[in-house]
Amino acid sequence: MKYAFAKRVRHLQSSAVRDILKVVSKGNVISFAGGLPDDDLFPLEGIREAFEETFKSGKKSLQYIETEGFLPLRDLLIDRMSRKDITSYHSDEILLTTGSQQAIDLFSRVTFNPGDIILTENPTYLAALQVFESYEAKVVPVESDEHGMIEADLVKKIKKYKPKCIYVVPTFSNPAGKVWSNERRKMVLKLAQKYHVIIFEDDPYGDIQFNKDETYYPIASFDKEGTHVLYTSTFSKTAVPALRTGWIAGPHQIIRIMSQAKQANDLHSNSLSQQALYHLCTNYDLDGHIRNLIEVYHSRMNIMLHELEKANLPGMSYVVPKGGMFFWIELDESIDTTELLKTAVERGVAYVPGAPFYVGKGKKNALRLNYTHSTPEKLETGMKILTDVIKEHTSLKEVVR
Amino acid sequence: MKYAFAKRVRHLQSSAVRDILKVVSKGNVISFAGGLPDDDLFPLEGIREAFEETFKSGKKSLQYIETEGFLPLRDLLIDRMSRKDITSYHSDEILLTTGSQQAIDLFSRVTFNPGDIILTENPTYLAALQVFESYEAKVVPVESDEHGMIEADLVKKIKKYKPKCIYVVPTFSNPAGKVWSNERRKMVLKLAQKYHVIIFEDDPYGDIQFNKDETYYPIASFDKEGTHVLYTSTFSKTAVPALRTGWIAGPHQIIRIMSQAKQANDLHSNSLSQQALYHLCTNYDLDGHIRNLIEVYHSRMNIMLHELEKANLPGMSYVVPKGGMFFWIELDESIDTTELLKTAVERGVAYVPGAPFYVGKGKKNALRLNYTHSTPEKLETGMKILTDVIKEHTSLKEVVR
Repeated sequence: MKYAFAKRVRHLQSSAVRDILKVVSKGNVISFAGGLPDDDLFPLEGIREAFEETFKSGKKSLQYIETEGFLPLRDLLIDRMSRKDITSYHSDEILLTTGSQQAIDLFSRVTFNPGDIILTENPTYLAALQVFESYEAKVVPVESDEHGMIEADLVKKIKKYKPKCIYVVPTFSNPAGKVWSNERRKMVLKLAQKYHVIIFEDDPYGDIQFNKDETYYPIASFDKEGTHVLYTSTFSKTAVPALRTGWIAGPHQIIRIMSQAKQANDLHSNSLSQQALYHLCTNYDLDGHIRNLIEVYHSRMNIMLHELEKANLPGMSYVVPKGGMFFWIELDESIDTTELLKTAVERGVAYVPGAPFYVGKGKKNALRLNYTHSTPEKLETGMKILTDVIKEHTSLKEVVR
Repeated sequence: MKYAFAKRVRHLQSSAVRDILKVVSKGNVISFAGGLPDDDLFPLEGIREAFEETFKSGKKSLQYIETEGFLPLRDLLIDRMSRKDITSYHSDEILLTTGSQQAIDLFSRVTFNPGDIILTENPTYLAALQVFESYEAKVVPVESDEHGMIEADLVKKIKKYKPKCIYVVPTFSNPAGKVWSNERRKMVLKLAQKYHVIIFEDDPYGDIQFNKDETYYPIASFDKEGTHVLYTSTFSKTAVPALRTGWIAGPHQIIRIMSQAKQANDLHSNSLSQQALYHLCTNYDLDGHIRNLIEVYHSRMNIMLHELEKANLPGMSYVVPKGGMFFWIELDESIDTTELLKTAVERGVAYVPGAPFYVGKGKKNALRLNYTHSTPEKLETGMKILTDVIKEHTSLKEVVR
């Protein structure tokens, strides 16, 4: 039988990251590809106890709950967000989701008609692009530098395209590992207010900051009326991914409609895990755990940095990450990282080529490296293999020229 | 700020069932409204041990997994489905979802363009109707009797509307509590094959069968090529809802595209719960537990039946449920059950009016009663109140005439 699918399916494709992960996870390859936290650091004992505590509250803990999610966890998140100076949301302005991915999806579902415009950085989070495209929204990239979006280009594109939304990952972005200055954050909010555009602020990595010498305030923290920013984050990077618990906070009217969409989507997310996460935050030193994560991930980033500096590849450039999970590297322009991937995997190391993170035609010579999921030994070995492969390929190209 | 939503939002509305539940759950009302299993019967100890077993497998159990879900659970479900004679699916033709609600949603997302036609029974599952409408599909009802859809009307509507899908809940349906004959099941499959239509078979209640004197084979069991039926079910009614674990099995090509849609939707469902459910099925006597559920729910249905018989309301008709969780009752045509609900709740009992379960204009005098979530005492008390309210309302109407 020939199956007939919806038009929106043509925009759906398996994520390059996850496809590579599928192959790599089976072999003996050192992977810098996935955006995975390190298993070895998971707070297994804390989570075990948190579930134990949840089960103590009896059989009621196993029943259906309301779509918005376990209320005590929502209240607790409001408290945690207030530490970042996000203070404008009440508990009916927060929705618990299956990871922050679902927050991006539900927002898109209730927002975009085919042809609607969304402004993004470029490159930006691959799986967000896939969601926007699956709802047939049109993504228009805004020029940025190392401090964030550039005001002149943003103003021009807001006026020209009348976007419904500006999607940003201002703190330790995926893939670029970049952090916006507070000035740029305020600038984007000011423009959003002036031109009546919603900002979707995706902040999965904000807690993984290596040095505390600077403070980065979420854009949501400047929106004191709570009218122009939707803020989403997740427990996947700071606690564990398997519990699939993220959240989104924003204006009541939008959260209410997203909640109705969620009801159609899956009634509600896993409520046992929401209860366990509540107990984890209450009884376990999650902040101490995050401090430990930061220390380990920082040292791993430094190992990767050290290997990059040692290799001293011609034509290479990068910004040293101040937090998050990724190194974004641009190589000599002669190198196509998508082509190079096959050789790299054959030699025993995987990464994600930069191309799919771009809207439209992007740089062929970029790649994303994850440093959180590999041991120091694997980071050293993997980086040696990778820089060797790049070196060989670079000189080969130069000879061919 | 005025927020602009997508057109599809106008089809989203909070489910009547869940809105009533929200109010009722706060008061002292006996509720026959929700489709809730009984908390007191939840296998808390089995689930506690299943999580304990999962944690023993170490930190790896807390990492991201592939979108399709925990493979050993998918393999186990293939084995469990084979007991119902469903034998045509492999493990890459099954997708674990956040309840079977998400299976309905993902299928709709990859299938329906605005205006596409889906055939359903009438009345049918409210939250499925809401999903179909949110993708702007057009729902066309097919005439049925107590044995299932009627062949002549189905043929007529397939020819006239060229539907993409036939959505059915053939075993202990929600809301009508009906069970299709095996002949009608085969008839629908034969027509689906002849006219190249997909059948979406929703089977959340199939395991809750009161008497084993008859065997109802899922439509999927007759589709030996595995080409024309998508079969979905859930652990929410047989184990617990809080783990939000359902599944869908079907032709590889459809499952693959649904899996890509799921990746955009939420990456994957809660994998810790999937692992725990695997251990629950392996180490705990889930079948014995289900036998116990059946016995309790059967006796509760009989209490409700007894009260209905005792009350002997004028103009009332119903079919005695052979399984599942619901009694579907039609009252004297003078009664509008939506109007009556306010009085009933004031007097201390809640139900769901029949109207929202219909496509288009439905019967105003129908209502759905759940018998699984109330103790025998509450069933007796609640039914006495409800039948009194109906009686008073019936005679009142007669006087007014």
